[in-house]
Amino acid sequence: MEERGPWKTLKVEERYATPWISVSHHDVIDPSGAPGIYGVVHFRNLAVGIVPLDEAGNTWIVGQYRYPIKEYSWEIPEGGGKRHVPAVESAQRELREETGIEAANWTEILRMHLSNSASDEEAIIYVASGLSFHAPEPDQNEELVIRKLPFAELYGMVMRGEVRDSLTVAAVLKVQLMLTDGGLSFQK
Amino acid sequence: MEERGPWKTLKVEERYATPWISVSHHDVIDPSGAPGIYGVVHFRNLAVGIVPLDEAGNTWIVGQYRYPIKEYSWEIPEGGGKRHVPAVESAQRELREETGIEAANWTEILRMHLSNSASDEEAIIYVASGLSFHAPEPDQNEELVIRKLPFAELYGMVMRGEVRDSLTVAAVLKVQLMLTDGGLSFQK
Repeated sequence: MEERGPWKTLKVEERYATPWISVSHHDVIDPSGAPGIYGVVHFRNLAVGIVPLDEAGNTWIVGQYRYPIKEYSWEIPEGGGKRHVPAVESAQRELREETGIEAANWTEILRMHLSNSASDEEAIIYVASGLSFHAPEPDQNEELVIRKLPFAELYGMVMRGEVRDSLTVAAVLKVQLMLTDGGLSFQK
Repeated sequence: MEERGPWKTLKVEERYATPWISVSHHDVIDPSGAPGIYGVVHFRNLAVGIVPLDEAGNTWIVGQYRYPIKEYSWEIPEGGGKRHVPAVESAQRELREETGIEAANWTEILRMHLSNSASDEEAIIYVASGLSFHAPEPDQNEELVIRKLPFAELYGMVMRGEVRDSLTVAAVLKVQLMLTDGGLSFQK
């Protein structure tokens, strides 16, 4: 029997697995002392997201159809990083693959648990500056559209609710606050 | 065969279900035309979150141990709302149950897809003001600690990375920006 804070875990069984997630069924004793169940979605990879910024105040977003929500979605460049690889290296790889951009300067701005009542998914988000431009190399199964736009325009899209991806929303709001309070500026 | 944007769905099988989530295995043709699989986590409920604000600039957060991440977490009041119930009613119920607070004024400030590469989970977040105070009625299996604090202090916790729940991070950053640009003020 494993103790997790005020919860006790009696038994764990894996019920579903793909290369990206595994889902396990937990028989538990909840904090009130009552027996219960908990379905936990484990993410094999870290989620990494990048806000690239050039010295003119532009950023880049990626458009793609997201299968689980059945909607087209505009987002900061994001992807999965292996847990044994430093997250910044995964972010550098994703940015290069999706947009063709390499960046000299990387600053971690945010870590979040995306859905902590059901999963252990964790996101780490960076600002990247000192940009140079190369050919994108997207994964074969991705159909991505890349768009360059002023960061201020992306901020407007988020504030109006036109962008709804949680990583993008939180990252853009935090960058705006960092730009406002002087902790961040557009630079080469 | 169902078409979802550039994806084709050949077959869907439910592989796991609880009262809160169901997990289905999809045989697909991906946007490149190659066969593949997709594991999709469906959330039966909407996630609702609330930032209560009083006229002195205080807010309330909830502390609890989150089983999937094996960590204690301070968050805005949040919970699940049935999809056939208006989200604002679910938010009103959650705020009352978790904190004992009722609010005269409700403003939707944010909608997000929390993890759109793997799930259809959607969050709707409100600011609540015009507060009155009653006894909390938490779910039997919840062990919650309620804390009243200045919103400015919660904003500091988010900016320093001491709060990592995605709903809380995004909500607090957006409220701060709304307070800054005049779209929101502390009121009775």
